Amino acid sequence: METWDAMRARRNVRQFTDQPVSDEALDRILEAGRRAPSAGNWQPWDLVLVTDRAQLAELAKVWQGARHVAGAAAAIAIVAPEPKDDRQSELLQYDLGQATYAMTIAAADLGVGTGHAAATDQAKARGVLGFPEGRFLAYLLSVGYPADKPLAVIHRLNRRPFDEVVHRGRW
Amino acid sequence: METWDAMRARRNVRQFTDQPVSDEALDRILEAGRRAPSAGNWQPWDLVLVTDRAQLAELAKVWQGARHVAGAAAAIAIVAPEPKDDRQSELLQYDLGQATYAMTIAAADLGVGTGHAAATDQAKARGVLGFPEGRFLAYLLSVGYPADKPLAVIHRLNRRPFDEVVHRGRW
Repeated sequence: METWDAMRARRNVRQFTDQPVSDEALDRILEAGRRAPSAGNWQPWDLVLVTDRAQLAELAKVWQGARHVAGAAAAIAIVAPEPKDDRQSELLQYDLGQATYAMTIAAADLGVGTGHAAATDQAKARGVLGFPEGRFLAYLLSVGYPADKPLAVIHRLNRRPFDEVVHRGRW
Repeated sequence: METWDAMRARRNVRQFTDQPVSDEALDRILEAGRRAPSAGNWQPWDLVLVTDRAQLAELAKVWQGARHVAGAAAAIAIVAPEPKDDRQSELLQYDLGQATYAMTIAAADLGVGTGHAAATDQAKARGVLGFPEGRFLAYLLSVGYPADKPLAVIHRLNRRPFDEVVHRGRW
């Protein structure tokens, strides 16, 4: 798909069909995350791909806003090192934002929907995913085909007007 | 350009030709930022487009790592509200990461290079950009055509191996 179409078709998807997502598509989405840029190229992410239904159901319990994971074809758990200080935390979140968006666009390009969630219950997350001490589950990305309608370019998007967001020369 | 090609062609560009970037291209890049997703759709960004050479030269002084702004065709200043607490700071950085990456991919799709920088000298940034109290210059995005070689799909990227980053089922 054309880049600009994929970017305008991306939306948060939280309800999914039963259709599985192919291994090729999942690998493409994961590869997009792996390739994302980061401060000093530190690449502060590990990506745990989960497709087992029982495991998805458990993962969905790590935060109230993560329930959509239970019905997704797959989930990508974004695991990161616990930041040492506020500055590292900022860098981490910024770079995780880049990696997340990269995966959502790579998915949208394939007609695959995504929805992300934070995680609060780290003990449960560690139990389900087995990541080591010193790391935490930063975000979950649900992956699957949208239950309501296919991804398509969104023409009327709920955003602040262009001329309000964009300033020219000075504020 | 195909999405996957644009995503794989994006790289950090810090040296630019003298060629200006068209208004249409700049507006596309800004629109990509405007459309980016954010927590609860709070859209915590204002984008100040700078193309004046003298203003770019001043902006380049807000951080030692921002010197590339002086030679860019344009810069997009990403201005954000000062976060109220650590949690809001995390959300802000994550969403700014998404918006930044969106702009870099929209640019790469048009053959336009980008390079981002942080900003430390907020007094100078405010003097150049005129943003109000309660906001800060979070990032600068240099925009222009790469001086060394055009953007093209990068096949050998300096990243951790796929099988190291990606775990299947469990860590």
